[in-house]
Amino acid sequence: MLSRPSGGAVMKYGFPSLSNIRTRESYVSSYDPRTRTPAWVIERLGGDTLGGNADRKRCDFKEDDRSDACVRECAGVSVCVCVCARVRAACTQVSACVRPCSVHVFHRATNGDYRGSGLDRGHMAAAANHKWSQKAMDDTFYLTNVAPQNPHMNQNAWNNLEKLCRSLTKLYANVYVCTGPLYLPRQEADGKLYVHYQVLGTNHIAVPTHFFKVLVLERDGRQGGVELRSYVLPNEPVDEKIPLERFLVPIETIERASGLLFLPNIVRTSGGAVTAAANK
Amino acid sequence: MLSRPSGGAVMKYGFPSLSNIRTRESYVSSYDPRTRTPAWVIERLGGDTLGGNADRKRCDFKEDDRSDACVRECAGVSVCVCVCARVRAACTQVSACVRPCSVHVFHRATNGDYRGSGLDRGHMAAAANHKWSQKAMDDTFYLTNVAPQNPHMNQNAWNNLEKLCRSLTKLYANVYVCTGPLYLPRQEADGKLYVHYQVLGTNHIAVPTHFFKVLVLERDGRQGGVELRSYVLPNEPVDEKIPLERFLVPIETIERASGLLFLPNIVRTSGGAVTAAANK
Repeated sequence: MLSRPSGGAVMKYGFPSLSNIRTRESYVSSYDPRTRTPAWVIERLGGDTLGGNADRKRCDFKEDDRSDACVRECAGVSVCVCVCARVRAACTQVSACVRPCSVHVFHRATNGDYRGSGLDRGHMAAAANHKWSQKAMDDTFYLTNVAPQNPHMNQNAWNNLEKLCRSLTKLYANVYVCTGPLYLPRQEADGKLYVHYQVLGTNHIAVPTHFFKVLVLERDGRQGGVELRSYVLPNEPVDEKIPLERFLVPIETIERASGLLFLPNIVRTSGGAVTAAANK
Repeated sequence: MLSRPSGGAVMKYGFPSLSNIRTRESYVSSYDPRTRTPAWVIERLGGDTLGGNADRKRCDFKEDDRSDACVRECAGVSVCVCVCARVRAACTQVSACVRPCSVHVFHRATNGDYRGSGLDRGHMAAAANHKWSQKAMDDTFYLTNVAPQNPHMNQNAWNNLEKLCRSLTKLYANVYVCTGPLYLPRQEADGKLYVHYQVLGTNHIAVPTHFFKVLVLERDGRQGGVELRSYVLPNEPVDEKIPLERFLVPIETIERASGLLFLPNIVRTSGGAVTAAANK
């Protein structure tokens, strides 16, 4: 029987932001209702999470939960209260609706949005990191843990980065991984900087230009010295021959571009004994 | 002596989102640390806020506050604790830093970012709405109430919309105005939808493609029937001859595009007696 990483322990080094936080069996995430993707997803990897019998073949991508409280009878029809709240004259139960949908129907990604796009539903917390429990692996298939990824990148360089994260559990007691999308500007013909990204489907799921992974590597599980490694990969075909070290960036680059903050929490928690691989 | 609209009253109809909320003399706002602009700003207009002696000539655009707690001695130099936290070996006071900058230096807009851009520092809560107090007007000049606006649009059609909001105080006891940026996709030559926007300066201030104003019009100040009007204007030159009614949109359009939610709060609060002008 494998031990379960607790929801609290995974957030040991703090929250990069505080918007729309949700806790799943295998990760904690912050959802961005404008882009319809996570802003970040944090998971803890260790020897106890990688082994087990969970089977990816039993997993399907799924929309975020509608809680029971969310679906109500409204004007004789069972509807989400988000919709119900709009059927004004006919519905007398609106004032009783206190619990909103886990993700409002206006801001939700669907499998249909990805269909025919040519892009993968790319995991932020990787399925293979959570073999310790079928529920933990299942939870990585929520679309709130997913963003559109270039298939070549997802299945090659990104997959290699995920494997690297897992292999680090042989050297470190705990590997905390924070993963998320970036929308980086680039210079266009007029010399100015622009952000440019596609949106998918009727719900306009944003296709990030890049993805980041911030790794906090903890040697012995006690609070103390930790190492940081932070990577940025472009959301386009990436030659597998390029060593992953080439994608190391200073953590500040990710903090500035994403609007998130990682390091202050880590410095505060660990007492300052931090080594950032990218700064070496 | 004019009465002061209280911080609580201005949020009578709820929060469109809960991220990075700050309360100023004249408005409540939510800051988006990724775009370096507000996500939304809510103000209340009424006969009591429009009159007064506050003078725009005494106002200057200013960066968000650095609180006293934010600036510390670190290694003999007075620095923001955000920076201090990075001077790891030399600084023994990091663990004492509990209060972050009001806006972290990584995510802050500066006047320098706007300089030479050809774009205006466009107010979300308009200065002229808050003549009732110099402090209230001053507070509209924080860059956290500002986003880059096309000068022609800002000084003509947008200015007319702001005037319209003020004129509605003659018909309604309270006019609640929520203003913010949008990043709307459009179809490109390949038939796909893309979001495309410029970023300004070293801090990459996002230039919104559009702006919204959601108006909640309250006849008598008591909770009861309210009217809604919601506008979207493009961030480009807009012919003043086009009547503002042409820019009315269903509120759902803004909710879907912005990732915010307005109506559920309003319906819950007002008991359902809502008239949306755009749906007429």
